[in-house]
Amino acid sequence: MERGVVIGLLGLGTVGSGVVQIVKNHQQELQHKVGCQVSVGKILVRDKSKHRDLDIDEDQLTVEVEDVVHNPDIDVVIEVMGGVNQAREYIIQALQNKKHVVTANKDLMALYGAELLSVAAENGCDLFYEASVAGGIPVLRGMAEGLASDRITQMMGIVNGTTNYILTKMEQDGRDYEDVLREAQELGFAESDPTADVEGLDAARKIAILANLGFSMNVELEDVLVRGITTITTEDMEYCKQLGYSLKLIGLASRTEGRVELTVQPMLLPHSHPLASVQDEYNAVYVYGEAVGETMFYGPGAGSLPTATAVVSDLVTVVKNLRLGVNGQMTARPLYDKQLKTDKEVESKYFMRLQVRDETGTFDTLTALFAKEDVSFERLLQWPLENEKEPMAEVVLITHETNRAVYEKIYRELENMDVVLNVKSSYRVEGGQA
Amino acid sequence: MERGVVIGLLGLGTVGSGVVQIVKNHQQELQHKVGCQVSVGKILVRDKSKHRDLDIDEDQLTVEVEDVVHNPDIDVVIEVMGGVNQAREYIIQALQNKKHVVTANKDLMALYGAELLSVAAENGCDLFYEASVAGGIPVLRGMAEGLASDRITQMMGIVNGTTNYILTKMEQDGRDYEDVLREAQELGFAESDPTADVEGLDAARKIAILANLGFSMNVELEDVLVRGITTITTEDMEYCKQLGYSLKLIGLASRTEGRVELTVQPMLLPHSHPLASVQDEYNAVYVYGEAVGETMFYGPGAGSLPTATAVVSDLVTVVKNLRLGVNGQMTARPLYDKQLKTDKEVESKYFMRLQVRDETGTFDTLTALFAKEDVSFERLLQWPLENEKEPMAEVVLITHETNRAVYEKIYRELENMDVVLNVKSSYRVEGGQA
Repeated sequence: MERGVVIGLLGLGTVGSGVVQIVKNHQQELQHKVGCQVSVGKILVRDKSKHRDLDIDEDQLTVEVEDVVHNPDIDVVIEVMGGVNQAREYIIQALQNKKHVVTANKDLMALYGAELLSVAAENGCDLFYEASVAGGIPVLRGMAEGLASDRITQMMGIVNGTTNYILTKMEQDGRDYEDVLREAQELGFAESDPTADVEGLDAARKIAILANLGFSMNVELEDVLVRGITTITTEDMEYCKQLGYSLKLIGLASRTEGRVELTVQPMLLPHSHPLASVQDEYNAVYVYGEAVGETMFYGPGAGSLPTATAVVSDLVTVVKNLRLGVNGQMTARPLYDKQLKTDKEVESKYFMRLQVRDETGTFDTLTALFAKEDVSFERLLQWPLENEKEPMAEVVLITHETNRAVYEKIYRELENMDVVLNVKSSYRVEGGQA
Repeated sequence: MERGVVIGLLGLGTVGSGVVQIVKNHQQELQHKVGCQVSVGKILVRDKSKHRDLDIDEDQLTVEVEDVVHNPDIDVVIEVMGGVNQAREYIIQALQNKKHVVTANKDLMALYGAELLSVAAENGCDLFYEASVAGGIPVLRGMAEGLASDRITQMMGIVNGTTNYILTKMEQDGRDYEDVLREAQELGFAESDPTADVEGLDAARKIAILANLGFSMNVELEDVLVRGITTITTEDMEYCKQLGYSLKLIGLASRTEGRVELTVQPMLLPHSHPLASVQDEYNAVYVYGEAVGETMFYGPGAGSLPTATAVVSDLVTVVKNLRLGVNGQMTARPLYDKQLKTDKEVESKYFMRLQVRDETGTFDTLTALFAKEDVSFERLLQWPLENEKEPMAEVVLITHETNRAVYEKIYRELENMDVVLNVKSSYRVEGGQA
């Protein structure tokens, strides 16, 4: 270990550059923490001639992956190239060459996390991935170690900065979705193709990773029921606000008696809920443990240096393990088999907004439908709407707790009811009463 | 390790009982995490005959400390007895007998942390103390490991649940300090002698522990400038609220170019600040790192099971280290010498409320005093007060950034000014503009 630890990078984009900067600028602290020098060796890039504003020698750059994953001088490989298939292949090669791996790749970990962790264990290597969820927030470590002795029953995360930025602006300024999305794209908070963010897919990957770790279980990405934010209107936002709720895109993983639910969808949270005040592009993960109760981890979900902080913190753990000779020894295999909740087991409250014919008996017909299914109301408001053709009214309601199967039955019946002109919107309500 | 790991407890009060419960109820998860059985051996108590609602054998209880700290069957000693001198002595004995130690004792760690960590290192033992700050929130671990690669420049904590409960109720319900304190005492949120909490001493201990860890420096409890909440009035609360701020008891540790400031005092935080929405008895620690930016750790600051969760999570780390044979090897000694900021180096904004004679020139006299010291205003409001004897006005102001030396000079001059009848209150303002 006298020569110190040498890391190789796969990729030198936003996060990779941040890693190079931190390793250089915080060298003194790093050495103090791990007791030896940590330096950057070879870096895999696509184009060696591209100008980079970093203090690296040209001969550190390579276009051959072998120079990193087969390089005997390299102890730890940091994968920050993104993508799935190639990254997976390179990481497996690195592990098979007994290199420890740190990755920031959420797509990869959501799809192949179990496989890669098992390859790491077989090869006596560490594989850490803190940066794959909620960027700079040390939430995986917080759960795996800080709450090690607890039994986690629920995780709720604002784990996508783009959508939280959009919803925050919609809520604060009363602007509509398209308008804020355009602004977010101009400011660089949203991609030119925002699909993965606004449709909830990105958040789904993170919730799958969180669930695997927090519930000690192998869930798949397809187990996550996903719904995005593209149909949220300014009216929805305004009603939620008036009722004392914030509408947020929430990734939720909950466990009851060994059976789990995984979903990403817009949810109403009361203003008093810790997640409700998470603004703009910030991320936060709310964790409920049987013993500890409510905890929350808050911070930047993306960005070069924040994400690189998480990567280098994983690196610190790897280097400590290296010095102690204990890498790859404590990877815990899943304790539980995957068991998903059925729709009947998924309990929650719902917010619904409807437009109905404003005529005698409408209200009764509506409430009778809910009563038939044994669903009662926490809030129920109706008022007339301006309309030239026929008298119309708007109804906004929040149900008491019911299960998804029953709610969806009611929803379908409402859509087919003669007195109901339009079911405008419907969202889950979590986190208690406003 | 076949026989598993046996822990001994010093104390069986609120936290100790929680530890016994968690070790029993979460045994399956614990075994899965550490790969061996973890059981409770001897427990030091004051009175063996006291009735306890716990599943323990009577012969586990002892009144002799030797049965725990000299017991060859015990691997890890958990100190949850509280107090300073005796706890210190017992922990040193345990460490000298090569027992690893987990403590929840903030008083002890604030006063003798450096000494105890050094005894632990000499004896090749682990000494962990996550539960000593912010109960169930894994903030020490989050900083030491999750932000391991970063350079922390500021920590701000709501680290005392009693005072946060009192201030929350004062803010929400417009009730006065004495009234809420009485209620908090009835509900068990405040001690019958609340001095350590309401005068900020408890928070000072925690901020000293946080600073030692976060800044890698040995600070002393007496380096913390402390001011409590006992003089906060409902008027102060109301003005702060109207100006867009929350008044919170904040423990602050900040570092600029190697020089640190440590203080506990009521501070105004803009409503948008993550700490401003921490309500009731909850705790939160806001950490600013050069690379990661803003992060926050939120959760329960006290309570039997939350605090015990932190203790048992430390225990999990000790047991993992035991199995790997790496205890006591990575205790980092302080990297930096202590250098405290002078009053001239402590920069911040201030809120002030004054009662003045309502006569021509008063306003000018006041503003001239601030101008002379080069301090400008972010907000400045004046309005007449009902008063029979002479015309009076109230002035509320928020300064722009200045240093503590200058501000205190102004404060003293104001107190001696003829036009100033009363300096009603004065608080620091942190966390940006409302």
